[in-house]
Amino acid sequence: MRACVLTVLLLKVIPDGFGIASETMARDYVHWTNNGTTVLPIDEMVIGLVRTKATDSYVTDSAASATAYSCGIKSYNGAIGVDDDIIPCGTVLEAAHLKGLKTGLIVTSRITHAVSSFAPSYPPPPSGEWVVWALTATATARQTPASYASHVWNRDEEANIALQEIGHAHPLGRTVDVLLGGGRCFFTPNTTAASCRGDGIDALAIARSLGYSVFTDRAAFDTKQKLPYLGLFTEDHMSYEIDRDPAVEPSLKEMALKGINDLYRATKDADNGFFVLVEASRIDHAGHANDAVGHLHDILAYNAAMLAMREWVDEHAEDSPTILISTADHECGGLTVGMIELDGPPEYWYAPEHFAGAKATTGPLAKLWTKYAGAAPKAYLKDSIFAAHGIAVPTDAELTRGLALKNNTIAFAKFLSAAISTRLGVSWSTGGHTAADVTLYGWGKGSEKFAGSHENSEVGHFVAQQLGLDLERTQRLLRRNQTWEQQWVRPQAGQERVARRSLAHHHH
Amino acid sequence: MRACVLTVLLLKVIPDGFGIASETMARDYVHWTNNGTTVLPIDEMVIGLVRTKATDSYVTDSAASATAYSCGIKSYNGAIGVDDDIIPCGTVLEAAHLKGLKTGLIVTSRITHAVSSFAPSYPPPPSGEWVVWALTATATARQTPASYASHVWNRDEEANIALQEIGHAHPLGRTVDVLLGGGRCFFTPNTTAASCRGDGIDALAIARSLGYSVFTDRAAFDTKQKLPYLGLFTEDHMSYEIDRDPAVEPSLKEMALKGINDLYRATKDADNGFFVLVEASRIDHAGHANDAVGHLHDILAYNAAMLAMREWVDEHAEDSPTILISTADHECGGLTVGMIELDGPPEYWYAPEHFAGAKATTGPLAKLWTKYAGAAPKAYLKDSIFAAHGIAVPTDAELTRGLALKNNTIAFAKFLSAAISTRLGVSWSTGGHTAADVTLYGWGKGSEKFAGSHENSEVGHFVAQQLGLDLERTQRLLRRNQTWEQQWVRPQAGQERVARRSLAHHHH
Repeated sequence: MRACVLTVLLLKVIPDGFGIASETMARDYVHWTNNGTTVLPIDEMVIGLVRTKATDSYVTDSAASATAYSCGIKSYNGAIGVDDDIIPCGTVLEAAHLKGLKTGLIVTSRITHAVSSFAPSYPPPPSGEWVVWALTATATARQTPASYASHVWNRDEEANIALQEIGHAHPLGRTVDVLLGGGRCFFTPNTTAASCRGDGIDALAIARSLGYSVFTDRAAFDTKQKLPYLGLFTEDHMSYEIDRDPAVEPSLKEMALKGINDLYRATKDADNGFFVLVEASRIDHAGHANDAVGHLHDILAYNAAMLAMREWVDEHAEDSPTILISTADHECGGLTVGMIELDGPPEYWYAPEHFAGAKATTGPLAKLWTKYAGAAPKAYLKDSIFAAHGIAVPTDAELTRGLALKNNTIAFAKFLSAAISTRLGVSWSTGGHTAADVTLYGWGKGSEKFAGSHENSEVGHFVAQQLGLDLERTQRLLRRNQTWEQQWVRPQAGQERVARRSLAHHHH
Repeated sequence: MRACVLTVLLLKVIPDGFGIASETMARDYVHWTNNGTTVLPIDEMVIGLVRTKATDSYVTDSAASATAYSCGIKSYNGAIGVDDDIIPCGTVLEAAHLKGLKTGLIVTSRITHAVSSFAPSYPPPPSGEWVVWALTATATARQTPASYASHVWNRDEEANIALQEIGHAHPLGRTVDVLLGGGRCFFTPNTTAASCRGDGIDALAIARSLGYSVFTDRAAFDTKQKLPYLGLFTEDHMSYEIDRDPAVEPSLKEMALKGINDLYRATKDADNGFFVLVEASRIDHAGHANDAVGHLHDILAYNAAMLAMREWVDEHAEDSPTILISTADHECGGLTVGMIELDGPPEYWYAPEHFAGAKATTGPLAKLWTKYAGAAPKAYLKDSIFAAHGIAVPTDAELTRGLALKNNTIAFAKFLSAAISTRLGVSWSTGGHTAADVTLYGWGKGSEKFAGSHENSEVGHFVAQQLGLDLERTQRLLRRNQTWEQQWVRPQAGQERVARRSLAHHHH
């Protein structure tokens, strides 16, 4: 019991790529499954909206948005913990560490995530095709954890980010006590099979030498681990919630509660508390893939985690007053929920019952379909692929099209996404992000002070203010190390930051 | 000066069909025109979200939504002031009138509006065409004012609604002191040219006999008018803001201030204040038409009115404590703001600068184009049609297509909407409504008590609570008149309410 300690503990939870239509889509599905339930846990926590534009675009990417949340400044799309002039900015996590708080980053993506945004991997479809967005489903990732504990001009530098996050290539040394998520491949040397690194550095060995308990499986996760720790459960991103094998990967809620409880125990007799960033990373990925099923179930997993954290905050209201703040970094996919009903009233419609039979996202199903080598492809397609995505009765045209796309995994995945979206009555306007404001959620002592509409950069300042952090001093300490700034933060020879357009309208 | 009166005055302002992306689209346009301006007036008034589902669809229409706001109950799509069993419900406006408050309905649509939703007026376009939604631009209207002062099973009964609104066919008699808007055609007998009535009833004469000052032009609007008054400035809806001739039609802000000031003067020495519903009706119509230009400028007009009302509330904080509550009834058009930039970073983009040259909505421009009989159609199309919608440099393909659509006014309007939307980087997924939550705005004493996420029906109850109204007694008084209920509220012989599907998932 930590009496009379005024330190504000802070949980920051980001549902990545989560727009207002996403919340409605999920709530109405829950309402349909149980008519007595009319709200999601997050509905009860709404306190306002967040405005998300970056300095070089009205539509932010995740790097610029995360930098707004971590440093309290607007920056350009692609910026990881740096400002418009590529100068590193002090983050709330680093400042919290400097003040003596414990810190954590808990995500469902690669913990380093900053891969390049997307790569069209097949030519645009002919007009009138089902498949509209020629983007890969998994190649767009995000930058939230990276922006809290690393600084680099371009989010593609994930091997660099891995070394900064564990404190090896960071001027402040180790700043994160709890690291949980995916992305092991950026921590293993390129001499190993799964590695994503271009060099032979063994970042897991370095992490151990820096004091981290390193573990990579569920069994170790379920065991007590000594702080600081680094738990990486998958080579790439962790699985979408509906595809997740709980014997292999913990849920977001499980990771959040383990991390929070470990940080709580480590600080409960100390003067300072902790700062944790929890991210429901893959809501966004499903948005990029226009995969309604993946989107829904990661939103529900986010809600389960939010409910658990809210209860944690309530339970610790006396001994550890804690603020829980949550907001998306941006909308993703241009999701809208509603179609015109052509066969009679009511004229407007959304049909969440089509979610009910879905057991997997489009990605694994498309891979299964491409791999199938049996003698009854049409029956397999209908009973094992369409049915597993919630489509019990595909049309003849859909089966024909599905057979034709058997060898094009990505195109088939998109086709399947479109088929379920049409039935649900949901639409996607893009494979990228949109500019719409996102909802701001808050819980716990003091969260009501942050009600209303805010720029995303104000979120960083609110966090710093609640924890009594000094972001400017943190920046000064970072910048003392000019060698680091030149070698790790700024573009190297042969690299170049592409010129930006200005948002401002200059009258001549 | 009215001292020690605890009556809460209430302004209820509805931006119809206004989603969260609409707010961002407009804010970023204002930011682009003036880099120093980063927020809209309404951004400073955000207090929460409103959930909008109806009883028979997750996607509400305006009738059901307005009934939730007016009566505090969820009902079916199409319901005007009646519950799921077509029983009339007491509205906050009627209850306010019964309590001795003055009341007002101020809108930019037809004041009766409840026309049938939409009628495809030309066949669906061939695949690959520019025009996606084969819906008329103006045939979808809304039901907000109707649901506050009339009761009818089906919103199409506009001639009926007109007579109820003025108190002729209403069991409580006259309940509205200020009626300002469009829709004169439902008040004039079918013996006159512009009439929309099927009968020979002269509702304007009836209004006069019931005590209304009736006026129909701008000059009379600018003159002091005795309460109660009925001002109808157009036969149909009032013009979109960007098409409005200020010599003929007042703006929403002007109507709101006139109505509020007149009601204030009429009540400032009384024990009770007033209730006013102000509606920015045509944001929705532009959404149905997927007309970004019309949508933007009606949103800006709504913001101008909101700012003026907010200032009014502040100025009268001492003598007339007033709550200003505003929320849309639903999103419209499935608007999303953001495209993928294919020619280099930043990868995500929205380009509000393409709004700058627009001088008119697509409707009047399409009519002009169809009517053109000159010798230089291509030059006219480019310089007088495309340019007037903000497209200074149409492509050759666009000019060719525009020439081909010259005699199809509706298809050309849709084509022009799509051309500007593509340039802006905005998308529309539907010609109808969507299910997404809408933003809740509040200002003035007590509005903070309503912060958070609410069902739309809670809005009606909040208003009733703030004004100390008795909705149940109001309903009982309405239902005393069973003859009225049979003849005016319920379906007549040959009319039938189409069966609804249930939202609930019943486990068998």
